[in-house]
Amino acid sequence: MTRKFFYPDSIAIIGATDNEKKFGHAVTANLMDNKDLAAKLYPVHPKAETIGGLKAYKSVLEIPDEIDLAILLVPAKIVPSVVDECIEKKVKRIIIVTAGFAEINEEGRKVQEQLSQKLKEKGIRLIGPNCVGIQNVDIGMNASFIQTPPKGNVSMITQSGSVGAIVLYEMVWQGLGFSKFANLGNMADINLTDVLRFYKEDENTKVVTIYLENVVDGRVFYEELHEVAKDKPVVVLKGGRTATGMGAASSHTGSMATDYSSLKTAVKQAGAIMCESISDYIAAIKAFSFLPLPKGEKIGVLTNSGGSAVMFSDFADDFGLKLAPFTEEFKEKINPFLIPLVKKVNPLDMIAGASGKEYYEVTKAMLEDPDIDIVVPIAVIPTFLGMTTSEHYEGVIKAWNETGRKKPIIPIFMSGNLLNEPKKIAKKESSPIFLNPREAAYAIKMLIQYAKRKKIIK
Amino acid sequence: MTRKFFYPDSIAIIGATDNEKKFGHAVTANLMDNKDLAAKLYPVHPKAETIGGLKAYKSVLEIPDEIDLAILLVPAKIVPSVVDECIEKKVKRIIIVTAGFAEINEEGRKVQEQLSQKLKEKGIRLIGPNCVGIQNVDIGMNASFIQTPPKGNVSMITQSGSVGAIVLYEMVWQGLGFSKFANLGNMADINLTDVLRFYKEDENTKVVTIYLENVVDGRVFYEELHEVAKDKPVVVLKGGRTATGMGAASSHTGSMATDYSSLKTAVKQAGAIMCESISDYIAAIKAFSFLPLPKGEKIGVLTNSGGSAVMFSDFADDFGLKLAPFTEEFKEKINPFLIPLVKKVNPLDMIAGASGKEYYEVTKAMLEDPDIDIVVPIAVIPTFLGMTTSEHYEGVIKAWNETGRKKPIIPIFMSGNLLNEPKKIAKKESSPIFLNPREAAYAIKMLIQYAKRKKIIK
Repeated sequence: MTRKFFYPDSIAIIGATDNEKKFGHAVTANLMDNKDLAAKLYPVHPKAETIGGLKAYKSVLEIPDEIDLAILLVPAKIVPSVVDECIEKKVKRIIIVTAGFAEINEEGRKVQEQLSQKLKEKGIRLIGPNCVGIQNVDIGMNASFIQTPPKGNVSMITQSGSVGAIVLYEMVWQGLGFSKFANLGNMADINLTDVLRFYKEDENTKVVTIYLENVVDGRVFYEELHEVAKDKPVVVLKGGRTATGMGAASSHTGSMATDYSSLKTAVKQAGAIMCESISDYIAAIKAFSFLPLPKGEKIGVLTNSGGSAVMFSDFADDFGLKLAPFTEEFKEKINPFLIPLVKKVNPLDMIAGASGKEYYEVTKAMLEDPDIDIVVPIAVIPTFLGMTTSEHYEGVIKAWNETGRKKPIIPIFMSGNLLNEPKKIAKKESSPIFLNPREAAYAIKMLIQYAKRKKIIK
Repeated sequence: MTRKFFYPDSIAIIGATDNEKKFGHAVTANLMDNKDLAAKLYPVHPKAETIGGLKAYKSVLEIPDEIDLAILLVPAKIVPSVVDECIEKKVKRIIIVTAGFAEINEEGRKVQEQLSQKLKEKGIRLIGPNCVGIQNVDIGMNASFIQTPPKGNVSMITQSGSVGAIVLYEMVWQGLGFSKFANLGNMADINLTDVLRFYKEDENTKVVTIYLENVVDGRVFYEELHEVAKDKPVVVLKGGRTATGMGAASSHTGSMATDYSSLKTAVKQAGAIMCESISDYIAAIKAFSFLPLPKGEKIGVLTNSGGSAVMFSDFADDFGLKLAPFTEEFKEKINPFLIPLVKKVNPLDMIAGASGKEYYEVTKAMLEDPDIDIVVPIAVIPTFLGMTTSEHYEGVIKAWNETGRKKPIIPIFMSGNLLNEPKKIAKKESSPIFLNPREAAYAIKMLIQYAKRKKIIK
């Protein structure tokens, strides 16, 4: 069962070390950093007496207790003998972080196949080799050599550890959090489908994200994808869409990248979201992680920046989105909050002087309007009239909170260092900030598409 | 002459105020902030004795000296009488920041036409109305109500003040600087072509950037664009590309947005760069501001992240870019810096353990290689093996500096908060950071395109 990799009772860290210049250090430190981790940790090292303050064992065979999960950080050439010890110890699961197997040459491929065959015979499941590891942020387990992200509702499977790191960094920076993270490396045993099956059942996972380079078990994978996408949005990024990209992918993973056009068709038919850039990928993840699905397609836009509303309208048009004309009732309702210069049309340009109060009132009016399904507050953060850099965003979120977060809001706030304060609020409130008109329009398109698939929009 | 707007000897600030809740305050404060400003400042206010510590005048007519430039911040309804006083005072140039003219209704249009007609008869030039103002960062003059950016070599003309602000914020955040900035508002007199003509001659302007919504004097504008683009890269972003966008644009500027497909063709024929999103726009500006033009099209890629190189390769393919195969000589040269796991192919994946030293050596080898014209160092900033977050970027820039910055480098560094330290170095060194594979590939495409236009690439 894949689940137990993420909820082990005991972990042997084989190749653990206190020396931060050594490869094994980051995984050791990441696991030991959480003093409340329920799983018991057993560092293994041929010479050390203690590691990270814990008693160290010369070999996994010396550990007195049962081992649920062994993480191998030792050099490639001694991996086979360590695996033999794990078999003798009756370890239940293994993660081989070490690189230097099927991805480098034919000899490496042979060694990897021998290892996986041997483990299969004993019923021991394997993640890797050549991976950064896995994380279960819900229980504070970071069994990888990359950073620990904050808790959230997004779970990722990535075929590139470093692309996983990029997404993690981006998500931290944008106030998003993870539930589970898995980099599967060469997938000698546990593959995409196995983890997908686990994420489908996992309660804390609201959004499933995948970075793909090659699909090994096509039919099974797409069937599982289809099952997951019925319940949860699945956001997919594919590396190796083109001939040049596929060449680079096969060089770094040691396996042929899957042809893009057929993969794209299959992923879309399964009901998952297919992205082609990191920006689109993060935008879609952000939308699904923070927002409810829209019940209709009518968009209301308010702004203090005419030009930004023009650019948003362009991308809305590109993506086939619909800006709703305002009703007379709505115009009357917002009239008290607007200066006479403001034309009551959608997008509503409240002009540079609009403050947090106007953003609050008009966002709220839009959220309460039965003829608007999706609200897009756009602000170029002002540095004049004594306004603070956060009051517009605060107004928007206050309105969203007071109306029970029933409709999606897509706040486009710009930009750079002026986002520092709004980002603090976003983090505290678990609310999104979209960084430019294009990513906002793309996110809306993805929300509508998935709401239609789920028949929330008829 | 448009130039004198940017180099005035004396400025009357009409509607100046110390009250930061008043509209006129930001322009007043921005102008007064620079104590070394060569232009003499004369605040004008009907009641104040002093403003910002300077003697205030009841009216422009009371100022004892000649006035090169009057900036009007007063309410729309008294603009006509203040303009009459400026005429009487023989002020040479006027900027009307105040909104509420042609952009709001027919009556506003009439008042604006009367004003511009009257000024034209007296030979007084006008910028505005309905604008955020202008800046000449070289002399520290901020005659606008938006932030003062750092000094640089980029000059902007924008038909949307707030889009100007977004670009300014983005540029500050990415370590880029301005030379001149002009928001022309309703363009009752001075228009795009006038400012373009000035930027062409302006020594400190290396890159010209335009945000366009409508072109009034088509033929003349495109001819001038063609002239400027012969010498300097001109980067254009158009708001109102689509029917929805054009609708929004005509609502906020009071004039019809220009049809996109004909404008796009004309801009491209003139040799300027046409962008369709803020991200592309900033990427192109960044490339031209920091980098020399390439002398060929052959790209060399080094990375610590296989997946990122795959994604870059995909976008390279999308944009028709060429990754050069490495020569045997080059492979031999870099061999001492690589661990045995590394395959010597382009993109060169040096794997997660590669440190600043390897980035320095391999970047340098690529910059010195006659078969590589453009170097793309890609790094997912590591958080392990005791490496710092800045050593990879430092290595790259050291190599670039030591080889005389003769070839363009396109460092893709990722991402989020881990960029804080590299960004400090980038600012100090005046060097770029590209934020994702797509923007890097786009920037390279733009550099190559312009190098071909200039016949640097044959």
